[in-house]
Amino acid sequence: MTPRRQSSRAPVTSPAVATVFTTVLTQGPVSRVDVARRTGLSSAAVTKAARPLIEAGYLIERDSEQSGIGRPVSPLEVRADREFFLGVKVTDRELIGVVTDLRARMLVTKFRPLPSRKPDAVVDGIAEMVTALLAESKAYKQRTHCLGVTVAGDVDRDTGHVRYSPFLHWRDVALGGLLAEKIDLEITVDNDVKAITVAERWFGDGVGANSFALVTLGTGIGCGLVVNGGVVAGSHGVAGEIGHIPVFGDGPVCHCGATGCVEAIASTDAIVAQARTATGEAGLTMAEIVTGARLGDTALRKVFARAGVAIGRGLASVANLVGPERIIVSGEGLDAYDLFADEIRETFATQAFGAAAQCELILRPLPFEEWARGAAAIAVQTLFLS
Amino acid sequence: MTPRRQSSRAPVTSPAVATVFTTVLTQGPVSRVDVARRTGLSSAAVTKAARPLIEAGYLIERDSEQSGIGRPVSPLEVRADREFFLGVKVTDRELIGVVTDLRARMLVTKFRPLPSRKPDAVVDGIAEMVTALLAESKAYKQRTHCLGVTVAGDVDRDTGHVRYSPFLHWRDVALGGLLAEKIDLEITVDNDVKAITVAERWFGDGVGANSFALVTLGTGIGCGLVVNGGVVAGSHGVAGEIGHIPVFGDGPVCHCGATGCVEAIASTDAIVAQARTATGEAGLTMAEIVTGARLGDTALRKVFARAGVAIGRGLASVANLVGPERIIVSGEGLDAYDLFADEIRETFATQAFGAAAQCELILRPLPFEEWARGAAAIAVQTLFLS
Repeated sequence: MTPRRQSSRAPVTSPAVATVFTTVLTQGPVSRVDVARRTGLSSAAVTKAARPLIEAGYLIERDSEQSGIGRPVSPLEVRADREFFLGVKVTDRELIGVVTDLRARMLVTKFRPLPSRKPDAVVDGIAEMVTALLAESKAYKQRTHCLGVTVAGDVDRDTGHVRYSPFLHWRDVALGGLLAEKIDLEITVDNDVKAITVAERWFGDGVGANSFALVTLGTGIGCGLVVNGGVVAGSHGVAGEIGHIPVFGDGPVCHCGATGCVEAIASTDAIVAQARTATGEAGLTMAEIVTGARLGDTALRKVFARAGVAIGRGLASVANLVGPERIIVSGEGLDAYDLFADEIRETFATQAFGAAAQCELILRPLPFEEWARGAAAIAVQTLFLS
Repeated sequence: MTPRRQSSRAPVTSPAVATVFTTVLTQGPVSRVDVARRTGLSSAAVTKAARPLIEAGYLIERDSEQSGIGRPVSPLEVRADREFFLGVKVTDRELIGVVTDLRARMLVTKFRPLPSRKPDAVVDGIAEMVTALLAESKAYKQRTHCLGVTVAGDVDRDTGHVRYSPFLHWRDVALGGLLAEKIDLEITVDNDVKAITVAERWFGDGVGANSFALVTLGTGIGCGLVVNGGVVAGSHGVAGEIGHIPVFGDGPVCHCGATGCVEAIASTDAIVAQARTATGEAGLTMAEIVTGARLGDTALRKVFARAGVAIGRGLASVANLVGPERIIVSGEGLDAYDLFADEIRETFATQAFGAAAQCELILRPLPFEEWARGAAAIAVQTLFLS
């Protein structure tokens, strides 16, 4: 979050104000009494904390409702269009950009192909994406202060450095700094899966959950974790790397240099590589591999079965180590889920330790624009972390 | 924590009181101003929260100190002997019991052999241990209200049920309920490694750390995790089971039923079993195996090397998934640490993803009585969780 411009921001001046704001943002409309009950703050503290937020236009009071015989209550609600947020997800082939409101509702979505993965080209592409998104409405131009950008890999959110991103072939790219030279917004750069987990926690099925894991299958295999009510960021910036849990001792060498990683066996690229080796057909595409496996090709089915075992072992590691309430399995890899669902579930059941097997596995499709929404969600987060 | 007796307890009547109490307990002596600064509470709220704790004798004000030219400050401090706590750790062979004060300082330590692992015998043994510990001082009898009991395995702290403890050969033993029939104290039953992690977090090197992992090597291989400032309990009661991360695809079947678990390769029992197989000597003891390996026996060295790789892969999984600031490696397995230290460090370095490799590995001896101190620490915790 280093590079930032000064902006007129929500007056989050104390922990109490941040608590009241996030409670109304994620759970509103909600009465002051309920905010007090849910946060442990006194009613007087809630009223005091809400006042500057109302004055700055971030919170509004709904019309009074007569509740039974007591005093009329005026629930607090977020004014969602008080500020807008941009989110851009960088994939190896394209940029996905969104404008959202304060509640991370997507108002505009844009896709732009990426002519090159070189940092300069990506930075230029993001700057053009930002211009195009803001051009959609005068209101966006006036009331947008923050941009979130996400990439897969090891990202240092504090400095905006991308330390390692396998799919972009990047090592130590100062993305935040490069973007700040071209874009006059407060910029946050983070890992893509962590960002989607923030969105899920604040505006999705994670609201109110004390712990959950969101696992994404696809080109990469990632995992966002919420534990003790907060997203796990990792002390050194790395966390949730389920793709790099070593589950096979004799497994293939992973692009990260380690051996037997889940990602080296079960990512889309790994499945394609193994399928090509197994069949001797060097030109096979993922679509052909999926079709062939569905038609019953034994060699191809074996590749998916092995991937399912690796994923199941990875999920069991998450359950045994962190013990989340539920694991949400998502990502574009779900398209082929029928081909390894049995192996994933059976392996998970065998490898989960004791009561960890009670951890619920939930499947959830993840449209591509949701990745950009995650990027916008970390931009919303800066309201509270600044 | 189900079975409990009514007791005169510290008046922890609000979250603010609990926050002030834990801050003084773990970081005191500390002035009200510093408590306010560290907790985000107002000075008025700190003063209000401290008052009932002072009146009940749990906190005391130190003599005023003149600090520079300002008003004299009276730092708050815990009155450590206001209440005493008992902790009992159950191993497969003996009971270890301690009396501690409020700051978990050990005042008495006792060891009792366990004639049988049957639940009734263990319950009787614990009851006798409690009687013997309390008999040490009239003050203990008068001012002890809480007992913590810990065992290895899958324990449901909420109900006091031991769901699975491999070394005791227990499944679904209602230990808390059985103890409550014989012992007139508030009883908390929990996993032994989680309990030691509580002690470490409140009274050890974990004070102030946002995240760390404590890994114990020995008969079992366990891990306590602190993430986002709290011990990870696991939604279903299971967490930190590093011993049951599947790190070898073709590995041996573990006592838990899964395949390739760290514990199936690197626990003391597993090392003994593999050494016996490798040498063909069925009567080998761990001491003989360690001596033989130190003298250079190739087969025995290979067994330790393989164990080191398994442990290194487990530690890397913790670093990649949770990203703790540091991992403290401890337990009686440290006695043979020289025999697999190189493999642990090399494997960790290879398998840690990106910046996760910066996670510090620290070795720490763990005397047996520390296990019982952990049990006492969870008894202290009940002051705040009741």
